[in-house]
Amino acid sequence: MALRVGVIGGGQLARMMIAPAVELGIDIRVLAEDQGMSAQLAATAVGDYRDLDTVRRFAADVDVVTFDHEHVPQDVLRALVADGVAVHPGPDALRFAQDKLDMRARLAELDVPQPEWARVADAGELQRFLDAHGGRGVVKTPRGGYDGKGVRVVSAAAEAEDWFAGLAGGDALLVEELVPFVRELAQQVARRPSGDLAAYPVVETVQRDGVCAEVVAPAPGVDAEHAAEAARIGREIAEGLGVTGMLAVELFQTEDGRILVNELAMRPHNSGHWSQDGAVTGQFEQHLRAVADLPLGDTRPIAPWSVMINVLGGPADAGMLDRVPAALAASPGAKVHTYGKAPRPGRKVGHVNVAGADLEEALRRARSAAAAFD
Amino acid sequence: MALRVGVIGGGQLARMMIAPAVELGIDIRVLAEDQGMSAQLAATAVGDYRDLDTVRRFAADVDVVTFDHEHVPQDVLRALVADGVAVHPGPDALRFAQDKLDMRARLAELDVPQPEWARVADAGELQRFLDAHGGRGVVKTPRGGYDGKGVRVVSAAAEAEDWFAGLAGGDALLVEELVPFVRELAQQVARRPSGDLAAYPVVETVQRDGVCAEVVAPAPGVDAEHAAEAARIGREIAEGLGVTGMLAVELFQTEDGRILVNELAMRPHNSGHWSQDGAVTGQFEQHLRAVADLPLGDTRPIAPWSVMINVLGGPADAGMLDRVPAALAASPGAKVHTYGKAPRPGRKVGHVNVAGADLEEALRRARSAAAAFD
Repeated sequence: MALRVGVIGGGQLARMMIAPAVELGIDIRVLAEDQGMSAQLAATAVGDYRDLDTVRRFAADVDVVTFDHEHVPQDVLRALVADGVAVHPGPDALRFAQDKLDMRARLAELDVPQPEWARVADAGELQRFLDAHGGRGVVKTPRGGYDGKGVRVVSAAAEAEDWFAGLAGGDALLVEELVPFVRELAQQVARRPSGDLAAYPVVETVQRDGVCAEVVAPAPGVDAEHAAEAARIGREIAEGLGVTGMLAVELFQTEDGRILVNELAMRPHNSGHWSQDGAVTGQFEQHLRAVADLPLGDTRPIAPWSVMINVLGGPADAGMLDRVPAALAASPGAKVHTYGKAPRPGRKVGHVNVAGADLEEALRRARSAAAAFD
Repeated sequence: MALRVGVIGGGQLARMMIAPAVELGIDIRVLAEDQGMSAQLAATAVGDYRDLDTVRRFAADVDVVTFDHEHVPQDVLRALVADGVAVHPGPDALRFAQDKLDMRARLAELDVPQPEWARVADAGELQRFLDAHGGRGVVKTPRGGYDGKGVRVVSAAAEAEDWFAGLAGGDALLVEELVPFVRELAQQVARRPSGDLAAYPVVETVQRDGVCAEVVAPAPGVDAEHAAEAARIGREIAEGLGVTGMLAVELFQTEDGRILVNELAMRPHNSGHWSQDGAVTGQFEQHLRAVADLPLGDTRPIAPWSVMINVLGGPADAGMLDRVPAALAASPGAKVHTYGKAPRPGRKVGHVNVAGADLEEALRRARSAAAAFD
């Protein structure tokens, strides 16, 4: 009898849990949104994750429930917990990943360094915030945003008018100062229900059009003090918010050397894909270990440098079948990961990892393999 | 549409192809001997690999057929090839892995260094060989042996009488000189149908009771000359026998410094499990790449030393479920691989890999994780 881990959501994060689950002897079962999704091989159910009956039926056959995404509604999560199901991360943690206003308020209570922010219920409140912060700001819908969606840089309250018009009564938007950052970092931490923690080295992420494009691990040129500060922030959030499983904290490094929290994700995260081939324990294995309350694995890198390059789908008329050989031929040392998705311009369909002693060489190899998909 | 690779046999070797298949986007399908086997997750068919109709139905839905074991009969393999199915390794190569007398004769033609040997049809012929080789020898049944089965060290022909009695007319046994070896090595090579080759570093294997117990990669203290000789032998056999996919060559290193071929395997092999976590491209990924005629991956180690320790099942009354946490707790840097098999004394149920800069430390860690399964 194997330990059964149920993953809600059939995307690439669930897919990438399959490999370590097989090796660890975990019986992984996926509730997919549809047939033919990325995690198809382990999909034992297809249905709507917002439907309590569907989720309940799925949860009845597993030892622990975890997630490919953070969109399962609070009432569904809380019903599972009331049923006695082990849910990791649990609803009390996930609400802070589901609502950015709740997240900002909780980080303020914890005194975690973050950008100046405000809850704004109308254009007047937003304009006052902008006036007090150099005339510009970042407006975010508290819920449902991802990969740059639900995020808008504005220099006048009027630019968010449509979002205010769409708000339900009592709801509000989040506005944050436009942080003068020199680069973006990400800190990952794994936490077990028993409280054990393991932090990964802080990495540098490069975004293009609001989507993570490249990651370098560890973040080049980061000094011991900043690395320790990032790890401290990761630990504090994991503990303060009661996160179980993998936590990713996206960070700004500012011109004046501060580190501020940008976003959170309570699951394996794009900024941690490098660890599949660059750390002793990859984030997908670590997530499974953490949610199943198994001893956590060593998070140390296996090489001085690891890089990850996302593969964004090229023209929709060409399949992935012809492109994988080209990528493998371009770089025999590149680790190619595909998501089983039909390519579409701008869609993440895979990524390439390379680890090595020379950063420029690793980047060159990873980029040449990734370029073969274009 | 993904490339479909069909694996005949549902054991742990097929199981360990699942992880790299998912990442590379290969649609892996397994013809398992039974329900609930190691490769269950990818089993799309259950049936007898000796039955042509069963194998034909399975092969009809895949782009290439490969194997978890070498036991598919020649007539079944040849019928598939006649049907136009891509079979890797093909029957002309596999016959040398299926029959040790054929293998010895072919290696003699290729002038590959090997122990003195003879085909012996009766006790008289065997006794003459023993008399000419110091009175002792290793008698082997040409077919069906594995993990020490079908192998017997004898000092008199009478000790093989039962095997001679069981021979069909025209059949014979293989006898080999008892090689005075100082240690056992193994050389792995991957070969594509197009002819491209990639050799792994030669490793040292430690056998206990005829079963591979530990592997150290690369083989400690091997000099450049011997490493090159092992790689040369591997290449020569892969080319000379027309092997496609992974080839493992088990070798004796003799007191006088020679390297002699002991056994062959035309599939991923226990001596190559270290590469899952210790090489840029693990043997299971490499096997898939080779049989699908995709560009081969980098075979270099990711650390100065890698070790692999087999986990032999302890008492049958305890499940694996309790033991995995103990193994993970014993060594956070150990990579634990389980085969989804019920433990039974002496049965291989998993293995542990550790890579690192210090060999003694790596061995200590791997052994402590493996010991947690006892």
